[in-house]
Amino acid sequence: MSDFQTFNGKQVLITGGVGFIGSNLARRLVTLGAQVTVVDSLIPVYGGNLFNIDDIRERVILNISDVRDPFAMAYLVKGKDYLLNLAGQTSHLDSMTDPRTDLDINAAAQLSILEACRQHNPGVKIVFASTRQLYGKPEYLPVDEVHPIRPVDVNGINKLAGEWYHLLYNNVYGIRACALRLTNTYGPGMRVKDARQTFLGIWIRNVIEGKPIQVFGDGKQLRDFNYVDDVVDALLLAALNPRADGQVYNLGSREVVNLLRVAQMFKELYSRVRIEVVPFPPERKVIDIGDYYSDYSKIEAELGWQPKVNLREGFAASLAYYGKNQQHYWDAA
Amino acid sequence: MSDFQTFNGKQVLITGGVGFIGSNLARRLVTLGAQVTVVDSLIPVYGGNLFNIDDIRERVILNISDVRDPFAMAYLVKGKDYLLNLAGQTSHLDSMTDPRTDLDINAAAQLSILEACRQHNPGVKIVFASTRQLYGKPEYLPVDEVHPIRPVDVNGINKLAGEWYHLLYNNVYGIRACALRLTNTYGPGMRVKDARQTFLGIWIRNVIEGKPIQVFGDGKQLRDFNYVDDVVDALLLAALNPRADGQVYNLGSREVVNLLRVAQMFKELYSRVRIEVVPFPPERKVIDIGDYYSDYSKIEAELGWQPKVNLREGFAASLAYYGKNQQHYWDAA
Repeated sequence: MSDFQTFNGKQVLITGGVGFIGSNLARRLVTLGAQVTVVDSLIPVYGGNLFNIDDIRERVILNISDVRDPFAMAYLVKGKDYLLNLAGQTSHLDSMTDPRTDLDINAAAQLSILEACRQHNPGVKIVFASTRQLYGKPEYLPVDEVHPIRPVDVNGINKLAGEWYHLLYNNVYGIRACALRLTNTYGPGMRVKDARQTFLGIWIRNVIEGKPIQVFGDGKQLRDFNYVDDVVDALLLAALNPRADGQVYNLGSREVVNLLRVAQMFKELYSRVRIEVVPFPPERKVIDIGDYYSDYSKIEAELGWQPKVNLREGFAASLAYYGKNQQHYWDAA
Repeated sequence: MSDFQTFNGKQVLITGGVGFIGSNLARRLVTLGAQVTVVDSLIPVYGGNLFNIDDIRERVILNISDVRDPFAMAYLVKGKDYLLNLAGQTSHLDSMTDPRTDLDINAAAQLSILEACRQHNPGVKIVFASTRQLYGKPEYLPVDEVHPIRPVDVNGINKLAGEWYHLLYNNVYGIRACALRLTNTYGPGMRVKDARQTFLGIWIRNVIEGKPIQVFGDGKQLRDFNYVDDVVDALLLAALNPRADGQVYNLGSREVVNLLRVAQMFKELYSRVRIEVVPFPPERKVIDIGDYYSDYSKIEAELGWQPKVNLREGFAASLAYYGKNQQHYWDAA
């Protein structure tokens, strides 16, 4: 991927840049010689954690602000070559209890970011981090990009609106933009304090704390996972390739596993893990989508992306990271 | 349609109730013996016009407020049996120049209306007026409900979010809701001052003022149209039938005509009509969708709806209405 040298000297803005994926992306871009500005709201219930950028703190510009602040965004987008637009409210449950906040962040703020680009920097290239959540309960597997859209929660609806604003501004105003529909991303830097970002977070925390990990239902639900380094690859490929403009791409994995198997892999890596199979909590059952895994052949064919890190390696790296750095991610009980 | 007697004595709230479709719906419901509350913002650039309810003014409760006002809506939804949710920003062009207002009305306010129902009146039945606009440029014709969703403007994205919030609240919270995807609706009470609601509005005004009517492009774009009385039928059928809960339905017409033919029909009704074929204005061309007409067999099969008023009758009634009432719809130049 020698093309990544293109980022050398480029101005890159990352929203959600102190969050999980944003901070890993910032680290990679700094290594590639980019001039990186990370924007983050640092709202405690979201993904931002300053420790995520501790090692690159002196090599990025850190700007604490909220994507809902149109004036801050209007300033920040100016002069940037790339906008990696990752800020979002990711909790499905929070989107149901506080739907308006989810709308403000995942839809309204996206529109104001795009308006800021249209007015102040129409030459920027934007990559938007979207989600497989908007497919809802799959009609067929694996789910490709032409699968019907059927969000099962407020978060899915708002993320979809946010995604489509990007494609619309590409198509109507020529502001180059594309979207990646991420599946379950995991790795160092993810929120593990609770299950707001992914259930894997709370599993990892529980493993390290010596608590049981809970599998809901029968544990047979199939899922696909991407290690964060692979997602960073995809974001950079999408940023560089003009073929991506106006497109959406699924990410995904060759390894499709059920949740019980994931728990067993944790146990293989960390023998003291205890697995509890428990009934689905009602508030989760109602928005559960059953089996899900993506067809990622479009991004493979068009942008040359493939996931490289297998689950065992990725889980091992994640568990090692949080074993070492737990004090930066949650307060001991 | 004797079932419509069910509305006798029922409490019905109509948002956008002083607008085009809302006022026709209010008139029908009053005739059926319903207790009707009409809510309208009366924002001048939208569809509300008090003359639309002049003949039923003493038989409805008129409440001027904005669907963006969550406190007003929380009060107004209480105790209602039916909510016919028609308020919206309908101008595609305005949605591009002022996307945030479109989002606030067509998405955010819908979410707050649904939250108001969830908190204060979960037993209400809601019918949401959606639009064929969210299909974008058709992949095939006629367009049925499983056609891919691909909005071509901000209005389409926001209307879709608004529609999906309704289906989500039906599915997750059991608040009975459905959506009708309206195609071009026309008839007495539509906005004719300008083309914000439909191009037919400005055509009718021009006919009555003796000005030429303009056909964009070659005039070969196919469209389907519904006379407002037929749309009122569909809204009432959807309100009554439990089979509609959680569903979306296209409206449509047996008569599919191109725009030049529509102009010619006007001329047949009103011999002094002059037709001008002019190039597409660039701001309209970019959001034009080419040919469009709906497959409405789903609502026909499931709810027993059929359009009854043919174009010639409907256009004649519309032209007669505006010829007589023009002073209430625009200021003479």
